Amino acid sequence: GVSFDPKEHQHLRYNPLRDSWVLVSAHRMKRPWAGQVEKPPEEHIPKYDPKNPLCPRNTRANGQVNPDYDSTFLFENDFPALQPDAPDPGEDQHPLFQTRAARGICKVMCFHPWSDVTLPLMKKQEIVKVVEKWVEILEELGATYPWVQIFENKGAMMGCSNPHPHCQVWASNFLPNEPALSDRCQRNYYQKHGEPLLLEYARQEAERKDRVVVGNSAWLAVVPYWATWPYQTLLLPRRHVLRLTDLTTEEREGLADIMKQLLIKYDNLFEVSFPYSMGWHGAPTGPHLKEDNSHWQLHAHYYPPLLRSGTVKKFMVGYEMLAQEQRDLTPEQAAEKLRNLPDQHYKTREN
Amino acid sequence: GVSFDPKEHQHLRYNPLRDSWVLVSAHRMKRPWAGQVEKPPEEHIPKYDPKNPLCPRNTRANGQVNPDYDSTFLFENDFPALQPDAPDPGEDQHPLFQTRAARGICKVMCFHPWSDVTLPLMKKQEIVKVVEKWVEILEELGATYPWVQIFENKGAMMGCSNPHPHCQVWASNFLPNEPALSDRCQRNYYQKHGEPLLLEYARQEAERKDRVVVGNSAWLAVVPYWATWPYQTLLLPRRHVLRLTDLTTEEREGLADIMKQLLIKYDNLFEVSFPYSMGWHGAPTGPHLKEDNSHWQLHAHYYPPLLRSGTVKKFMVGYEMLAQEQRDLTPEQAAEKLRNLPDQHYKTREN
Ligand SMILES: O=P(O)(O)O[C@H]1O[C@H](CO)[C@@H](O)[C@H](O)[C@H]1O
Ligand SMILES: O=P(O)(O)O[C@H]1O[C@H](CO)[C@@H](O)[C@H](O)[C@H]1O
Repeated sequence: GVSFDPKEHQHLRYNPLRDSWVLVSAHRMKRPWAGQVEKPPEEHIPKYDPKNPLCPRNTRANGQVNPDYDSTFLFENDFPALQPDAPDPGEDQHPLFQTRAARGICKVMCFHPWSDVTLPLMKKQEIVKVVEKWVEILEELGATYPWVQIFENKGAMMGCSNPHPHCQVWASNFLPNEPALSDRCQRNYYQKHGEPLLLEYARQEAERKDRVVVGNSAWLAVVPYWATWPYQTLLLPRRHVLRLTDLTTEEREGLADIMKQLLIKYDNLFEVSFPYSMGWHGAPTGPHLKEDNSHWQLHAHYYPPLLRSGTVKKFMVGYEMLAQEQRDLTPEQAAEKLRNLPDQHYKTREN
Repeated sequence: GVSFDPKEHQHLRYNPLRDSWVLVSAHRMKRPWAGQVEKPPEEHIPKYDPKNPLCPRNTRANGQVNPDYDSTFLFENDFPALQPDAPDPGEDQHPLFQTRAARGICKVMCFHPWSDVTLPLMKKQEIVKVVEKWVEILEELGATYPWVQIFENKGAMMGCSNPHPHCQVWASNFLPNEPALSDRCQRNYYQKHGEPLLLEYARQEAERKDRVVVGNSAWLAVVPYWATWPYQTLLLPRRHVLRLTDLTTEEREGLADIMKQLLIKYDNLFEVSFPYSMGWHGAPTGPHLKEDNSHWQLHAHYYPPLLRSGTVKKFMVGYEMLAQEQRDLTPEQAAEKLRNLPDQHYKTREN
């Protein structure tokens, strides 16, 4: 019979971090697209907008005035999904109607005083400041909260309502679904194989090379073997690191470097400011700081929605919601495309 | 202290079908929305479009000509994600690089010969024909395939590229993630409590009433206690039914009736043709037909994206992708809103 070609023949791949499968149907890219087209990401954003609550010196919804900050700036979210003092819901005894208390805190962190820059356009030393602030936040909130989710929604397509470069931090008194699942999977792997799942994975990918996008001496960015989003990437340290707070000065610098490299590739792919949601997963904190978390390896997930162009995204709908995620190009194809793009940002390239 | 009010105080709710939690932060609806606004669903669709491959008598991408059908019409997807004959990928022995063969078949089913109708605007007897066709498809494909996913993507917002009323059927040689998880959860509940999870759940909801949207003697539609999408609903038979193929004639008629009721509520909510993805989950088929599947209860999930209006959707991004799903109004608030809407479709109402 015909021999197997992942680009031509649909198949399943296993995601060991979520104990689930993804359907890879790369031949589907051949179908013409007649569906919804998005507005292209906004290109003309003013450096300073007197009405933008994230800019230095402006007044926010709650009446507070921002300082005249010149690097990062952290403040409490004015419309937090998690508050520190919600009363206990009590308990409905029926197993199908279970409620639990949720407490926490939501913060917003600006990356830069200017609204017209994004991480890939910032200087490496400015990104180092962002990394250092992440470490500081995790140190502080992680002292008590079991989970501190640092994440960035970038672009209107990802529900981001403010173009000013920023991320969010939601800390909670519970371990949310995704890290709980990842914790379970990493723990099982560690028990079975005696080494951290993602440490071995990074080692394998560094050798196999076909899914590597960018790398440096401390970090590796790959389109994971089990990626669901078309250009999804996984950012991994090369050394065993549990949390952002464990990074050496060199690794923080290396992180700023690889983030800049990766995000330049992303922006260059369709020559737009590439939308995505990204976030950090590391060993749990608070009460878990005292436990053995050797099965954990720090990593960041990047989930970008675009598939065909700067205006045509992948719709995770229908079959994906009801049955299983499906992707329309192989992870190797995605990695190759990204890898082969210029290292210089399209906006700063000379003609 | 203050007493717990689910509309004011964030909390977690347990989803027993997915063994996960959802964060309910209803107070978040107070925040102003400055983010992306979608194009409103298209209102002026011609009854017949000579270029639409789904209309009667038209030629499709592969050169086939559609019959002059006057009810439902089923054909094979011209760009299938699953094909019956994909070669085996072989096996990479490393546990982090696992691949499996995926085989199957993808079909498209038109609900009606006219492009300008949708299920809620069709006559009940026309919807009965849709239900009967679903039963027929499941009977046929379910004879060999372990999973037959019937699903509808409705609206451009849900990636649907053709306004003609239709659904899809993807049958596979594997049990996809979502039904596999649901199977596990229903099985565990059955083993522990001696009755099907969703049978008990429907009974409870019929008594509690505050999450019921519509109902009739054979069916119940509720905003589930653990809903993640703002106006998500769960359609349940009142009797223990494993699969669509087990429905009595009366239950098929009742299904057409409750679908029409529910979808009229949906359209009336923002007075737009309400976008959603929906799909059927019933006991697995093929080799599983011979097993005891008493833990299963047939049900349909409706996942609509809209949150605030016909043009502002809920973005499941950032925290939702990296940590846990979060909703901005309580399921009870959503159910009450839907329940209180008129039973007559806004397009056919007399002024
Ligand atoms: O096959 P369609 O309708 O063109 O495609 C749509 O539904 C599929 C199944 O839910 C998804 O995989 C696609 O992303 C979506 O655009
Ligand atoms: O808080 P924001 O940025 O206004 O809101 C955005 O991010 C949140 C966290 O990912 C999501 O829950 C919202 O749906 C999204 O619109």
